[in-house]
Amino acid sequence: MRVDVALVHYPVVSRIGETIGSAVTNLDLHDIARAGRTFGVTTYWVSTPFREQQELAGQIVGHWTDGPGSRTNPDRSDALSIIRVCAGLDEALTGATAHYGVRPWVLATCARKQDNTIGFAAARERIWQGEPVLLLLGTAWGLAPEILAGADGVLPPISGVTGFNHLSVRSAAAIIFDRLLGEAPGAV
Amino acid sequence: MRVDVALVHYPVVSRIGETIGSAVTNLDLHDIARAGRTFGVTTYWVSTPFREQQELAGQIVGHWTDGPGSRTNPDRSDALSIIRVCAGLDEALTGATAHYGVRPWVLATCARKQDNTIGFAAARERIWQGEPVLLLLGTAWGLAPEILAGADGVLPPISGVTGFNHLSVRSAAAIIFDRLLGEAPGAV
Repeated sequence: MRVDVALVHYPVVSRIGETIGSAVTNLDLHDIARAGRTFGVTTYWVSTPFREQQELAGQIVGHWTDGPGSRTNPDRSDALSIIRVCAGLDEALTGATAHYGVRPWVLATCARKQDNTIGFAAARERIWQGEPVLLLLGTAWGLAPEILAGADGVLPPISGVTGFNHLSVRSAAAIIFDRLLGEAPGAV
Repeated sequence: MRVDVALVHYPVVSRIGETIGSAVTNLDLHDIARAGRTFGVTTYWVSTPFREQQELAGQIVGHWTDGPGSRTNPDRSDALSIIRVCAGLDEALTGATAHYGVRPWVLATCARKQDNTIGFAAARERIWQGEPVLLLLGTAWGLAPEILAGADGVLPPISGVTGFNHLSVRSAAAIIFDRLLGEAPGAV
């Protein structure tokens, strides 16, 4: 599989729909890196334009990949080593394009259904056929409309049987990785 | 569906295999409640024998269900309202039995394959046929051996294609809920 994921901290929307920049959180780095590493994600881009936030993310990652954490918990070090901090999606897309040798298909995610939706089964098939993908995850109340509109496709909302829809980005990422990259359903 | 989940803080194992009691964490409450509420979990039992930890968990839940959080974020309030703090698995099992009118099937989870494994497809079928289930999740390095041995069945480890296996309990819970309780695979 040739899949990168980008966690977007700007531009995202607030609870009332304003475009904002959100703060990097420690658990978003750890949980999504651990899940990404488990399901074969090549690079986990942590995207924020704010210099201090980039430094914070870099320090957290460094603690586990080069610092004391790397000696106490090698699995954690392995997981966090897939993180690359970047200033924006352009940088992630350029990096992924250089790595894969071709521009990846940009697949966004949203808790609300979008016009340019592509189903999980179709997305999974393209990935398993070897097409490189850059998967976009939004923090706060989700990716800004211009990011969704500019993506090559948007995955459907994840819903259970309840109609309730309020997953953390960490939980959504884990489920999306499993649906797109996990063992074939018949195998489990 | 008639599914309860219990997050076990004691007895669990440490990195070196000792039986320990772990600390309640804020994000375990939020992420697993949000995912549980999304996928139709009835009650999310937070199990710890430590009185101060029970109080801490109760205060966190109360902030969102009755306190200021309930007014700023009703979705979060709705999610956290499924949490019940308990002193041990006996209490969770008694509570679930009273609620469902029959002792639930106790299904444990582990990142290492166990003798009494039951596959996701078989477990899903039992749940969708209406059998009540109490799903056990371990914190720290997982449920203690006596909990695994005493369960009616244990789900297989979640693995991607990489062989790497170091998911957070929050990510594992989300994936397990989706596999057992989510939309039928063909629908997505």
